[in-house]
Amino acid sequence: MKPILVFQTDFSYKEGAVCAMYGVVKSVDPELEIIDGTHELPKFDTWSASYRLYQSMAFWPKGTIFVSIVDPGVGTQRRACVAKTSDGYFVVTPDNGSLTHLKHWTGIEEVREIDETTNRLKGKNTVDVDVFHGRDLFSYCAAKLASGQITYEQVGPKYPLDEIVLHQLHEPIFNQGEVRGIIEIDDPHFGNMWTNIRTRDFLNTGFDYGDKVRLTIRHQGEDIFSKSVHFQKSFGYAQKGDVILYNNELMRVGMAVNQGSFSQEYGIRHGPDWHVTISK
Amino acid sequence: MKPILVFQTDFSYKEGAVCAMYGVVKSVDPELEIIDGTHELPKFDTWSASYRLYQSMAFWPKGTIFVSIVDPGVGTQRRACVAKTSDGYFVVTPDNGSLTHLKHWTGIEEVREIDETTNRLKGKNTVDVDVFHGRDLFSYCAAKLASGQITYEQVGPKYPLDEIVLHQLHEPIFNQGEVRGIIEIDDPHFGNMWTNIRTRDFLNTGFDYGDKVRLTIRHQGEDIFSKSVHFQKSFGYAQKGDVILYNNELMRVGMAVNQGSFSQEYGIRHGPDWHVTISK
Amino acid sequence: MKPILVFQTDFSYKEGAVCAMYGVVKSVDPELEIIDGTHELPKFDTWSASYRLYQSMAFWPKGTIFVSIVDPGVGTQRRACVAKTSDGYFVVTPDNGSLTHLKHWTGIEEVREIDETTNRLKGKNTVDVDVFHGRDLFSYCAAKLASGQITYEQVGPKYPLDEIVLHQLHEPIFNQGEVRGIIEIDDPHFGNMWTNIRTRDFLNTGFDYGDKVRLTIRHQGEDIFSKSVHFQKSFGYAQKGDVILYNNELMRVGMAVNQGSFSQEYGIRHGPDWHVTISK
Repeated sequence: MKPILVFQTDFSYKEGAVCAMYGVVKSVDPELEIIDGTHELPKFDTWSASYRLYQSMAFWPKGTIFVSIVDPGVGTQRRACVAKTSDGYFVVTPDNGSLTHLKHWTGIEEVREIDETTNRLKGKNTVDVDVFHGRDLFSYCAAKLASGQITYEQVGPKYPLDEIVLHQLHEPIFNQGEVRGIIEIDDPHFGNMWTNIRTRDFLNTGFDYGDKVRLTIRHQGEDIFSKSVHFQKSFGYAQKGDVILYNNELMRVGMAVNQGSFSQEYGIRHGPDWHVTISK
Repeated sequence: MKPILVFQTDFSYKEGAVCAMYGVVKSVDPELEIIDGTHELPKFDTWSASYRLYQSMAFWPKGTIFVSIVDPGVGTQRRACVAKTSDGYFVVTPDNGSLTHLKHWTGIEEVREIDETTNRLKGKNTVDVDVFHGRDLFSYCAAKLASGQITYEQVGPKYPLDEIVLHQLHEPIFNQGEVRGIIEIDDPHFGNMWTNIRTRDFLNTGFDYGDKVRLTIRHQGEDIFSKSVHFQKSFGYAQKGDVILYNNELMRVGMAVNQGSFSQEYGIRHGPDWHVTISK
Repeated sequence: MKPILVFQTDFSYKEGAVCAMYGVVKSVDPELEIIDGTHELPKFDTWSASYRLYQSMAFWPKGTIFVSIVDPGVGTQRRACVAKTSDGYFVVTPDNGSLTHLKHWTGIEEVREIDETTNRLKGKNTVDVDVFHGRDLFSYCAAKLASGQITYEQVGPKYPLDEIVLHQLHEPIFNQGEVRGIIEIDDPHFGNMWTNIRTRDFLNTGFDYGDKVRLTIRHQGEDIFSKSVHFQKSFGYAQKGDVILYNNELMRVGMAVNQGSFSQEYGIRHGPDWHVTISK
C-alpha cells in the first residue's frame, strides 16, 4: 500500500483552498488516501503546527507522510522542505519552526529542500501564483512522494539538520516536593491546559495519583491562579466544575475543569511566560 | 469489503485528538475506511450523541461500525461497550446514554463490555493515560472489529440489555385537533427545531399539508412563541423570514424560519421543558 | 477507477445531515470515494457555491463529480440538475445560480434535470420528506452516476443551456493607469478580499510587481479605504499588519493585511456594490 497523506493546516474549510489542494493530490495519483489531521490550527501559528505533529504522529503507521502548512512566509525566502524523522515518518512543511518538537523529541534523520523546478505544479491555473504553496508545492510534492513517482532523494538537495528553524523549548525544573514548568499549549476546544512537565518525572519527584497539591500559575509577575487541587488519572475524579491536575494524553501534567473550561473560567493562556508551580 | 468506520465525537478538529485516533485505526489496519460523521457534537452532550446516531444510521450499509465518543466520564466506572443493533449495525461507545434513541427506535440486539486487557492500545505512548479512551480503547477496539482481527464476541463479555444507561424519552400526546409534544433537539446550524411529534401521527390526528395551525411554545410556564403558521412540506413555501411548520428529514414535525434561524430569532432551545402545542 | 465525489454544502458538521448523506452514497456503492470540498459555505449563499466550484474544480482529475448543495429553494419548483462542463467534470446541484462562474469561465456542455422517479432515494425513512434533497436526491443520483449504475443520459432529460439560472457577473474596466472592478468574494477565514480583476489584464494595463499604487474601495458612494499600497507576489513582502495588493491563487488581484484580516480591520465586505479602483 502507498503511504497515507495526513494534512494539517490553518486554512479552515471556509473557502475552496483545501478542496483545490486535495484535487492536486488526486490529479497526481487518484489512489492516494488523504486524511484530515486538522485544518483548524490557529492562523500563522507555527508553534501549534509543531506541537500537533508531535502529538499525533507516533500513532500512525511508519512511512505516513504528514503535510503541515502553516505558512505565513509563503512566497518569501523561507525554505520548503521534507523532513524524515528518526522513527520513519515524513513531514512536508515550510521550514519555519513547524519541526521544533519533532526534532527535539523524536529526532530528524534528514531534511531536504523541495526542488521547485521539478516538484512544483505547473500549468495555466498557477501562473505567477506565489501565495498558495500548500496547493502548488507541498501537496504536489507530497503526492509525488507518496505515489512513488519520486524517491525521497528526488525531493531536492539535503541540507544540514542544524539549519532547521526552531522555536525555543523550555524544560521544567524539579526540586524535591516542587516542580516548576510552563504551559506549553492548550486544548482550545475543551479549555484544558498542558504543561511541559512529563508525568513520569512528576511521579519521580515524589508526587502520586490522589495527592492534593498546590497549583500556582503566574503570568507577568502576578498570580493568576493558586489553589489546592487533586492530581488524578482523569477528569471525572473531580466534582463537575472543579479544577483537576491530571496525566494528559501525551503523558504531561495537564490542568482541567471537569466538564468546564479551565482556560476560559480562569483567563489562562499558554506560552513561555505562563509559569506553573506545583508543590506539596 | 471490510465495514466502514463512522466517527462522531465532541472533540472538534481544533487540536490533534482526532488525528491521533485515526492514526490508531490505520495502524491496526491501513485498509480500513474512516468517515467523519461529525466531530462537532456539543461538548459532554450524550443526548445529542444518541440523537445523531439515530438520525443517520439507517442510511448506511448494514454492518457499518459507528464509533461515538462523547465521554465526560472517561477513566471512571462507566462501561465502554459495543452494541449490536437489531437491524445489523455496530456502535462502539461509552455506555452513558448515547444508545438511548437507538435502543428505543431501532432496538439493541446485544451489548458487550470492551475487555481492556485484550482490546486496548498498549505501548510507550499511552502509559497511565486514562483521559483518551477515544484513542486508546474505542478506536483501537473498533478497528480490530472492522478489520476482522476480533469477532463481535471477542469484544468482551455480554451484559444484560436492561443495564444500558438511558436518557428519558418523551412521547407526544394526541387529541383531536391538538398535539402536545416537546422540542427534542435542534439543528444548531440552521436554527431549525425538531419536535418529538411524528409527522405520520400528526397527519393521522387530522392535520394536513397546507393547514394553517396555531403553534405555541411554552417554557417554564411562559409562552415563548404563539402564532398562526402554515404546515408545509418545505421551507420555501413560507415567505423569507416567516415561520413554518414542516415535515423534517426524520419525519418529525419541525419548526423553521425560511432562510433564517427560528432558534435565534425567537430565543428557543430544546429539552423536555420546552413544550410545543399545535392546534387547529 | 470510479470517479471521486467531491461535496460542498452549507450544512456544517453540527448535526447528522452530512453523515446521513454520505451513508446514502455508501449504500449505493461502498467503493465510492467521498471527499469533503467544504461544508462551511455561507448559509443560503448560492454565489459562494458558484465561486468555490470554479475555484477548485480545475485542480481535480477529469471526470470528478462535484455535489454542490446550497439549496434554499429545496422542495419548491427550482430544478435539480447535473451539469457537464466543457472540460469534462460533472456538477450535481440545484439549478439556482450555483453554476454561474462555471458557465461563464469554464463552459457548460450539457445540463440534465434529475428524474425523481428513477434517481431519488425511496424507502421508509424518507416518506414525504422534501427538505433534504442533499440526502434523498443529489447524493443518491451522484452516487449512481459515479458508480456506473446510470449513464449521464439516464440522469434525466436534457434542457437548454440558456435556461440555467445565473447570477450577474461584473467585468472590470481597464484604462491606462487605472483599473476599476468590484470585490467579488472574500476569503472568510483569513479576511483577504478578492477582486474581479484578472492579474494578467492588470499587468497588461501597465502595472507591475513591486509597484506602489493607490487602492480605493468605495461602498454606497463613500470611500471606505484609500491608501497607497504595494502590489507584490505574496503577503510576506509587506510588513506584518500592512495592506498589500497581490496576485491571488485564482490569478485575480487580491487585497490582504500581512498576518491580519483586511476584511475585519477595515470593515470591508464583498458584492457588486463594493467598488475597487487601482491607479498609479
